[in-house]
Amino acid sequence: MRDVYHQELDTVGRTLVEMAGQVGSALERATRALLGADLALAEAVISADDAVDALQRDLDVRTLDLIARQQPVAGDLRTLVTSLRMSADLERMGDLARHIAKVARRRYPQPAIPEELRATIEEMGRIGVVLAGKVAAVIEGRDAETARELEREDDAVDRLHRALFGALLSRENPYTIETAIDVTLIGRYYERFADHAVSVAGRLIFLVTGQDARASADSRP
Amino acid sequence: MRDVYHQELDTVGRTLVEMAGQVGSALERATRALLGADLALAEAVISADDAVDALQRDLDVRTLDLIARQQPVAGDLRTLVTSLRMSADLERMGDLARHIAKVARRRYPQPAIPEELRATIEEMGRIGVVLAGKVAAVIEGRDAETARELEREDDAVDRLHRALFGALLSRENPYTIETAIDVTLIGRYYERFADHAVSVAGRLIFLVTGQDARASADSRP
Repeated sequence: MRDVYHQELDTVGRTLVEMAGQVGSALERATRALLGADLALAEAVISADDAVDALQRDLDVRTLDLIARQQPVAGDLRTLVTSLRMSADLERMGDLARHIAKVARRRYPQPAIPEELRATIEEMGRIGVVLAGKVAAVIEGRDAETARELEREDDAVDRLHRALFGALLSRENPYTIETAIDVTLIGRYYERFADHAVSVAGRLIFLVTGQDARASADSRP
Repeated sequence: MRDVYHQELDTVGRTLVEMAGQVGSALERATRALLGADLALAEAVISADDAVDALQRDLDVRTLDLIARQQPVAGDLRTLVTSLRMSADLERMGDLARHIAKVARRRYPQPAIPEELRATIEEMGRIGVVLAGKVAAVIEGRDAETARELEREDDAVDRLHRALFGALLSRENPYTIETAIDVTLIGRYYERFADHAVSVAGRLIFLVTGQDARASADSRP
């Protein structure tokens, strides 16, 4: 019985890694759909998020079932409860990628992002994908060192986010209100995606070291 | 020992009710600070959120400890794990109220919200406070009926949110970009506050009836 139990524990970890892979891919494709005004790709990202949601639901059911049946010792219990929280973060990251794809769809065939802001968005997307990849590695290897790197990369996303507002505000010939709304929401989606990646990393650090990395996924405005 | 255990279970529920009360009060005061350009009140809301965060941290420690020590039966386990999720929703609602207060502080002494949009924001705030109050009642009474009402009120928030975008876009003499950014973010904060309230209600419905009320707190854009 204990062997089956440990296999089930491993499966929980593998599912989280799988979710991180899927949301990273979703963000990469959502960014391409947004910058390329690619309707088919946007639709594909929107549909694919159902699979992430399904992974989360299955994982939660299995995790709760494991806790109830196996009455795990304190360490395993902490791992399992942390897994529930990580899956919630990852599910939310999938939602945010889908939100970005929905803006691309809403504006199609127009591009939602003005030419001169594309590089900033592209960079936010690139870092978001890197963060999702690191989240997968962090979970797979229970790797607190890599987990600590995520905060630094998140700082880069925050800087890009502020730069985006700066660019919106400083233009001599002002953007339309529609563009301001789109860029504000999109910037927020990328920033929250990164915040949740950092949150997963913080949970892993806490699990491995017992130290609280950061109070909350979104302590800033 | 079982008596102490049930007292501890009750304390978990009471702490969630207390958190709901605090985040409802935070939203009410954040809305007043925003509409009244009241810096002192904004600062008070921002500081007070630490207490909500502390309640969540304590609750989580106690809940995990209860699970580990008492090896609860399936029903109690489900209640405890659901409590962990509710506390995460409530903590996030507190963050969102604080975000609103921060916009008020950032724009002080200017009001962040143009005159003709104040009524819409005021109504979003009013409904948000009602939702937080119902969340408290729903948790306290394990009341699935009231929980179902929350979705309807959330629909009202979504309508107001769309009206806000409509008002931003349709004005002949366009708003400044700064106002567009502020109103977009603020609208999003109120909408997410309501989404999390509905999410708590959905978790309670699932706990009491075993039926999934709604897949996720934020299935829409």
